[in-house]
Amino acid sequence: MKLSEYIKHQYDASFKEANFPFKIVQKKVKKGEVIYSYYRVGTKIYFLNEGIVETTIRFGDIEKTLSFIFENNFFCAFASALTGEPSTLQGTAITDCIIEEFTYRDYQKACEIHLLANKIGRIEVEKYYLRKFKREEAFLTKTTEEMYLDLINKNPEVIQKVPLKKIANYFGILPETLSRIRKRIDS
Amino acid sequence: MKLSEYIKHQYDASFKEANFPFKIVQKKVKKGEVIYSYYRVGTKIYFLNEGIVETTIRFGDIEKTLSFIFENNFFCAFASALTGEPSTLQGTAITDCIIEEFTYRDYQKACEIHLLANKIGRIEVEKYYLRKFKREEAFLTKTTEEMYLDLINKNPEVIQKVPLKKIANYFGILPETLSRIRKRIDS
Repeated sequence: MKLSEYIKHQYDASFKEANFPFKIVQKKVKKGEVIYSYYRVGTKIYFLNEGIVETTIRFGDIEKTLSFIFENNFFCAFASALTGEPSTLQGTAITDCIIEEFTYRDYQKACEIHLLANKIGRIEVEKYYLRKFKREEAFLTKTTEEMYLDLINKNPEVIQKVPLKKIANYFGILPETLSRIRKRIDS
Repeated sequence: MKLSEYIKHQYDASFKEANFPFKIVQKKVKKGEVIYSYYRVGTKIYFLNEGIVETTIRFGDIEKTLSFIFENNFFCAFASALTGEPSTLQGTAITDCIIEEFTYRDYQKACEIHLLANKIGRIEVEKYYLRKFKREEAFLTKTTEEMYLDLINKNPEVIQKVPLKKIANYFGILPETLSRIRKRIDS
């Protein structure tokens, strides 16, 4: 879905593409391409029209998958954009993707005067927060099998489109352990 | 600091207490008192004028400290207020506190029409998100000693006012381990 349609559906039925108070660029991103990188300051906000994106964090020699982004969601190096510090995260397309992007600066300017920009920003950050909280809560209270079932029930395309080792990395387990969980669920 | 002063300092120099589009109630809370509880739906938002509040999560027989809230910050059973589901968290005063409270419903109504309410909401949720992200990042990339130093550098009052066992629980370590870390830092 294009961002203008998403806003029309979620926030304001009369919204049109021409209403954006800033420039939005749509582009295609190939599977494996980095959308925003480690160590750079995040300056853009992205909306995922199609595909799946992975967010990773690197520390020492270890790289860990923090989240998968599915279509019709915003994503960006958010902590970096907020603080102006270099990003500790990286966003990579794990399938071919179509994204729309705009600058964090344009968005911030819009927020100075537009009620709708603030409203969308507020509610999307609430969703962002909620995803992070639910993940933290799940890691404390659920088994990996329960978390895996939640993930594939909400996003069945994960099974075909996301490599097993990335899903295992996301749960902090070995790929072999996830294979065993999959077999148990299938049987 | 009172909420009206906080808004005046952070968001709008001309803001006055009379500008609130809804009722705000200030109250005193005794050390140990529960401000919002497990299993209830969160209906209120709180601003901490004075004191320290602890957020805990319970699963099975275990209770874990997820965060400490310091003065001039908002707090609430946020995921519960957003989803309407019973809270999996509890907020407890760990010192005598003064708080101001208002209902989430009043706040949401204000957000329908007020630019400032949306702006404050958006930016405060961004901060909330950032705290949660920094915590997740720290747990992945820092040692407990580094995290403890960050905590006491930012909030030196923790040492006097928060029991050692609560801080240890927050870091997911035994009180004895935190005692050893403290001794190493002091020496």
